[in-house]
Amino acid sequence: MALPGLRYATYHAYRAGKQPPARANTYNQGNTMNGADSLCDTLLANDVDVCFANPGTSEMHFVAALDRKPKMRCVLGLFEGVVTGAADGYARMADKPAATLLHLGPGLGNGLANLHNAKRARTPMVNIVGDHATYHVQYDAPLTSDVEGVARPMSHWVKRGMSAESMSADAAEAITVARRHPGNIATLILPANSAWTELPADTAVVKVVDEAVPHTTVEAVRAAAKAIRSGETTTLLLGSTALRERALKAAGRIARATGVRLLSETSNRRIERGGDRTPVDRLPYPIDLAVAKLKDVRHLVLVGAKAPVGFFAYPGKPSLLAPEDCEKIVLATVEQDLAHALEWLADELGIAADAPRLAAPAPAYEVPASGKLTGAAVNILVAHHLPENAIVCDESITQGREFPIYSASSAPHDWLMLTGGAIGIGLPMAAGAAVACPDRKVITLQADGSGMYTLQALWTQARENLDCLTVILANRSYATLHGEMKNVGVQEPGRNARRMLDLEEPYLDWTHLARGMGVEAVSVDTVEGFARALQDGLKRRGPFLIEALI
Amino acid sequence: MALPGLRYATYHAYRAGKQPPARANTYNQGNTMNGADSLCDTLLANDVDVCFANPGTSEMHFVAALDRKPKMRCVLGLFEGVVTGAADGYARMADKPAATLLHLGPGLGNGLANLHNAKRARTPMVNIVGDHATYHVQYDAPLTSDVEGVARPMSHWVKRGMSAESMSADAAEAITVARRHPGNIATLILPANSAWTELPADTAVVKVVDEAVPHTTVEAVRAAAKAIRSGETTTLLLGSTALRERALKAAGRIARATGVRLLSETSNRRIERGGDRTPVDRLPYPIDLAVAKLKDVRHLVLVGAKAPVGFFAYPGKPSLLAPEDCEKIVLATVEQDLAHALEWLADELGIAADAPRLAAPAPAYEVPASGKLTGAAVNILVAHHLPENAIVCDESITQGREFPIYSASSAPHDWLMLTGGAIGIGLPMAAGAAVACPDRKVITLQADGSGMYTLQALWTQARENLDCLTVILANRSYATLHGEMKNVGVQEPGRNARRMLDLEEPYLDWTHLARGMGVEAVSVDTVEGFARALQDGLKRRGPFLIEALI
Repeated sequence: MALPGLRYATYHAYRAGKQPPARANTYNQGNTMNGADSLCDTLLANDVDVCFANPGTSEMHFVAALDRKPKMRCVLGLFEGVVTGAADGYARMADKPAATLLHLGPGLGNGLANLHNAKRARTPMVNIVGDHATYHVQYDAPLTSDVEGVARPMSHWVKRGMSAESMSADAAEAITVARRHPGNIATLILPANSAWTELPADTAVVKVVDEAVPHTTVEAVRAAAKAIRSGETTTLLLGSTALRERALKAAGRIARATGVRLLSETSNRRIERGGDRTPVDRLPYPIDLAVAKLKDVRHLVLVGAKAPVGFFAYPGKPSLLAPEDCEKIVLATVEQDLAHALEWLADELGIAADAPRLAAPAPAYEVPASGKLTGAAVNILVAHHLPENAIVCDESITQGREFPIYSASSAPHDWLMLTGGAIGIGLPMAAGAAVACPDRKVITLQADGSGMYTLQALWTQARENLDCLTVILANRSYATLHGEMKNVGVQEPGRNARRMLDLEEPYLDWTHLARGMGVEAVSVDTVEGFARALQDGLKRRGPFLIEALI
Repeated sequence: MALPGLRYATYHAYRAGKQPPARANTYNQGNTMNGADSLCDTLLANDVDVCFANPGTSEMHFVAALDRKPKMRCVLGLFEGVVTGAADGYARMADKPAATLLHLGPGLGNGLANLHNAKRARTPMVNIVGDHATYHVQYDAPLTSDVEGVARPMSHWVKRGMSAESMSADAAEAITVARRHPGNIATLILPANSAWTELPADTAVVKVVDEAVPHTTVEAVRAAAKAIRSGETTTLLLGSTALRERALKAAGRIARATGVRLLSETSNRRIERGGDRTPVDRLPYPIDLAVAKLKDVRHLVLVGAKAPVGFFAYPGKPSLLAPEDCEKIVLATVEQDLAHALEWLADELGIAADAPRLAAPAPAYEVPASGKLTGAAVNILVAHHLPENAIVCDESITQGREFPIYSASSAPHDWLMLTGGAIGIGLPMAAGAAVACPDRKVITLQADGSGMYTLQALWTQARENLDCLTVILANRSYATLHGEMKNVGVQEPGRNARRMLDLEEPYLDWTHLARGMGVEAVSVDTVEGFARALQDGLKRRGPFLIEALI
């Protein structure tokens, strides 16, 4: 769309030294406001009061508006993958969305991987992505790109806010979508002139009314109850909000009373566990183990979970992991109220509200005291010393697979995982969780290879003085891929393969990396050293990093 | 598309312990090959022999194939933005594409920002993006995403290689597109089963025939000649390959003989300059300066360049920067042979092939000797000491704007710039340029804020022992944005704005960051210290970093 009149007039007015039209360049000074103000006001009026940001030139009016709203907490990330990963961690713990502020298509692109994880977690999030002024897009300036195209694969909802006047309604729509249970990624594109255009000072702010969370149906509950009563092997596969405490209480009563097994999906947004909470087994990542775990199941009751599929396909291995002929029953979908569904199911089965629940397991490990440090020792020591109410951000990949077993008997804690397989979420997620829960210790189990993707998050942890203890499980390789090379039949990788799978020549030094971003750090390679560093780290407040050489 | 027969059979075969079908799980052992081999062979047969990579599980068969091809140089990046930025730098210097290896939609997403820059530079590049096996996509495993959707905004060409049999033809098509003058981003999606499926050992490899570069027309040449002969103010605006030495020789003859001005676009892929090469002025980034530079132009002759537009829109400032009523003449488009067009124009103007060219300028600076370090001092000292045949990777943003002025009289060098405005290209581009030109010194002028986007590139510089000298211009702020805040009328940023624009609390320590990735580094804050460190760095071979506190 060419707008020759507009640009011609503007060019000549500019060259003649005339003032530009008032509507196009004023901004809030006392009794006026602009589109960016309207957007900020709408976020704040709807309880979105944290903005993880990495702004650029096209967002300067929005930054100026944020500067006028001290109630908005602005948290800078030095890379957009930090911004979106932190917003994910924040929302998982705050149970409400944060806003992100991103800079055009490439800035959004940098945030896509962690948006993918958040989309898979169904985390609520409101992305504000700046773009060129609407009339400037046609000129294809260097930073022009198809922002909608970049946003769509990792968003549930995408809209361009075409005017300052529509900004409050657009933002309210984004918040409504983001908050729709269990959460969605809403991406609102903010053209620079929608931000800078002036509005009447009394422009109304749209308030969002939350939608009721839908319940499951009596048919679904009866079908699940019938399967459980059949006496045949039945498993409740729990996902999403079925892993929160209220839902787990009901599931724990059902399991104790009927003997059904409780299993969680492999990758989960947040599990409330430890202490006397209902223990839930986890579907293993490796296909062979997952198939073995499910092989006897006759009825698979899906509670906010999907019928299990392989994370990847392998020649000669199945995509679907449960027996073909087992019955799959959807008790409730992820969009429904899963706690309500499980309580209803318990009622249907005649289980009293105060019936006993599945008991928490006793610790099933020996605490190692000395020797060369191993991944298992790290997992046991962290599980053993886990402080009450800790938040565990888990991107430990291969080296942490046994952590959930050891920590089943730990103090009560939240366990946040990599949901979408896009590595680089651990350090940012921890930063966001710590912003949401300033009184809780956040412990990150971080593989070294994936930690490198978004290591800039350490700076945000330092900047905000977040209570984040990071354990780098430094095996100095993409160990997952070494395993996968064996899976494709390569026993002895050659030079090209080794140079793509090993993080050596040179080794990374995480103590230097952390110090470079203002985070204190130590490196340990013995059990004694790790135990000391861990206890030291748990006593501190503020960010600290332990490089565990295993 | 559901394939129940396939998965059912596979599940049962698997559970029964039967061998999977031979076609689906064998790979090259002596006299057989698979789709991944066919792809690698096609790349090598067409002179694509460097692969910048960050692989994942779905690419393991491709990695195994690369492992069987020692002629392919595989260069690991610890983040995909490093991979795509390095492939860009490589192709700018090698004048041929590298391959990249990326892991599904999120891995591609991580590489998008530097793909955007490469797309704007029209750099040739062949991206290989692994994806799930074709039959596995329907199950929506956690890493499933719309890979085509992620690729399209930053690619000129996207295709999914649907079978092993088609792999060589698909790869050849990707190479053809990538090489089409002046270069294109070709993205080939590689489903895992297209990689692992077996092929006859004598499967043919498709060889690419390069297309001729089209010439401009006599009408275009005559129109440009007429404008130059008019005696009215005429400017040749040069972009893309018009900034390479052969084209510049012709432009230099024309400028010397006729008095037309030579101007380059603001952001350029590669300029061959210094020594006795034709000097070219550069269109400034700030709109006011750009408009002033162009205000008297009556005829604007576009040579692989576009009519200049503002990098961003600003209230009351024009989008188009040249006078509305100046005549725009397209001598040749970026897709045409620009050296040929300029030589033809010189002929048309009757300028002899050996006519004198525009002279290089004399050094116009005083070399500072001592005092507190400033951006200007860094620029002058680097320009002064620039070794012959250096490659300058420039992501200096605000602090390096005067470098091109000082370096116009430097020894002959190549100057590579940030073409698309997506920050985070400097360190990766340097790595790629050094892989392409192992005998040339690569000097990176790197702003600190943008350097943090892809700092992982330092590890690749160490791993490959690349001759990269990095100068971090550490002003510890997003200085561009401070200027832009003033542009939107904010004289004194408040807390929220300052915390989004300043890289302090804590400061970054680049010597620690570099050492953490195996690169030696020093920090200096005086002119004397910088001069010493620079000369020390120039004497070494291998990576070295100077943090210049300015």
